[in-house]
Amino acid sequence: MKSKITLKKIAKEFDVSISTVSKALKNSHEISEELREKIQAFANYYHYKPNSLALNLRSQKTKTIGIIIPEIVHHFFTTVISGIEHIANEKGYNVMICVSNESFEKELLNMEMLANGIVDGIIVSPSKETLRKKDFKHFEALIANGMPLVMFDRTIDEVKCSKVIVDDEGGGYLATKHLIDIGCKKIAIITTEDFLTVGSQRTKGYLKAIKESDLAVRENFIICIDDKHDMNEQIAQLFSLSDPPDGIFAVNEIYAATTMKIAQKLGWNIPDELAIIGFTDGFISEFTNPPLSTVAQHGFRMGLKSFELLLDEIEHQEEGYSHRIEKISTDLILRKSTIKE
Amino acid sequence: MKSKITLKKIAKEFDVSISTVSKALKNSHEISEELREKIQAFANYYHYKPNSLALNLRSQKTKTIGIIIPEIVHHFFTTVISGIEHIANEKGYNVMICVSNESFEKELLNMEMLANGIVDGIIVSPSKETLRKKDFKHFEALIANGMPLVMFDRTIDEVKCSKVIVDDEGGGYLATKHLIDIGCKKIAIITTEDFLTVGSQRTKGYLKAIKESDLAVRENFIICIDDKHDMNEQIAQLFSLSDPPDGIFAVNEIYAATTMKIAQKLGWNIPDELAIIGFTDGFISEFTNPPLSTVAQHGFRMGLKSFELLLDEIEHQEEGYSHRIEKISTDLILRKSTIKE
Repeated sequence: MKSKITLKKIAKEFDVSISTVSKALKNSHEISEELREKIQAFANYYHYKPNSLALNLRSQKTKTIGIIIPEIVHHFFTTVISGIEHIANEKGYNVMICVSNESFEKELLNMEMLANGIVDGIIVSPSKETLRKKDFKHFEALIANGMPLVMFDRTIDEVKCSKVIVDDEGGGYLATKHLIDIGCKKIAIITTEDFLTVGSQRTKGYLKAIKESDLAVRENFIICIDDKHDMNEQIAQLFSLSDPPDGIFAVNEIYAATTMKIAQKLGWNIPDELAIIGFTDGFISEFTNPPLSTVAQHGFRMGLKSFELLLDEIEHQEEGYSHRIEKISTDLILRKSTIKE
Repeated sequence: MKSKITLKKIAKEFDVSISTVSKALKNSHEISEELREKIQAFANYYHYKPNSLALNLRSQKTKTIGIIIPEIVHHFFTTVISGIEHIANEKGYNVMICVSNESFEKELLNMEMLANGIVDGIIVSPSKETLRKKDFKHFEALIANGMPLVMFDRTIDEVKCSKVIVDDEGGGYLATKHLIDIGCKKIAIITTEDFLTVGSQRTKGYLKAIKESDLAVRENFIICIDDKHDMNEQIAQLFSLSDPPDGIFAVNEIYAATTMKIAQKLGWNIPDELAIIGFTDGFISEFTNPPLSTVAQHGFRMGLKSFELLLDEIEHQEEGYSHRIEKISTDLILRKSTIKE
């Protein structure tokens, strides 16, 4: 197999400088016709391709953007990507995706790789580890370097860049209010640990709706799932209470579907004895039986908006760009898990 | 905001050549100490980062691999990526993911971008459009260029590269055989159109199991879903037959879950009147009610194997590498959709 041909190898072959080869390939008249033809024929024969980074050195624009997401086997994040892809293609941009796998170090490595002349801007949702450590120097360095940056979903107040967030508090409020409206009196929430803004915002919306009604806030109705322990056991606690809930709001799809599974195994009738509503309109919610009501967080729309903000910054960077924060509103999707007949 | 600083801009600032700047930044003694210090201080002040191109030209290795998948909101493909990520990280490689969105042109663009000095090798699952058009020139050019290439899941006989495939025929056989073993006499299959190898291989396994038993192959029990039309209507045909099936093998998770939903709406009892088995062990299968039996195709393992083959080729490319084809075997995961009590 032929090894990859480079400017350097061609230069060596003809015993000339790399710059001469480059000029010959660009058909520059600074180089004699004879040498130009020889070099071009040789490069052709070996399928020489100009290195994209050489192009970058010239134009400084790669027409490529980078995305870093915390998880890849994740319906919401992939839906956001499909939104970004959709509009990026329309605007003539390529997209490269990297996964931090919830690791701070991996996020840093991905960011360095992308920022190194490969992309014109980066869209990121930070890893859990980054949020837990509160170490944001890599984002700050990126911004100081003049790289346009947009954060989505999980965002960081301290980092000065454009952001696209879901109205998580509003969504939590909507979901809880819906349970109250259908007559639930004892409403529990299954949420994430506090350092994840999205979970804590949804909890805030839940508390707001509960406090607005005549219902009492009950500590043992607030389950914060700790990733390091068995989720099923943590959820099952709710059903062993002497006075268990009649409505549950789960802040994501997996929590909601798992709650339904556990409740059904224990003989609860859904929705008549227990109404359940989730968050994220993924495939799972559609296929549970009964199908799950949920809060649509519009990942696709979030992707569109994230790219729009990034492109705006790429195009107006030189003029002293002001960052923007866009909030995507949520909607209820009602299905049989909360519709009592 | 400061614009990105480049070798070119530094060179202009000091009125010297790019090569002089580059040497000064590498602390070369060819450049006077005074100029070296000035250039380094300037580069530091403007947060200059060496462009990865320059690094590539030196080492020819980027320690990065590229992946091109046809769809991103897709459990199986993202599971394969998580396998690739897992082992790539262990081996010190970065991973960049691109999405073809089932488009030939997008696949081509992604491939050109990645091959242009950014990655050491590419792992790809071709788009439906590429398979339909049978235009494989971009893969052939890549190979001619000496870029290591591994294809997974959907593969192309004509392209000479290493491949990792699922034992789709074996999986289709296992699933159908299981339905026969639990007493189904009238077994239908819901599959893809023929140009997708994975669907046609699974159908082959189905036909093999049917023919081995005493059951007859019935044309109207083979539903090939045409993406351009409503899936629900195509599946519902089975239930309007005068002699409908008592067992259904669906070649993917969405087909299986949709079939269950349609059947339940029509009042069928699952599994007693109708047993259903799918393919791909995704989240949906776990959360339907009853949960779906399925064929595990081990996406994570497929990811590990794909990277192993690619790395082997990257490391032994110069020695006349021989391509390999690896087949990942499948297993049954039995759940209540086929367990009659």
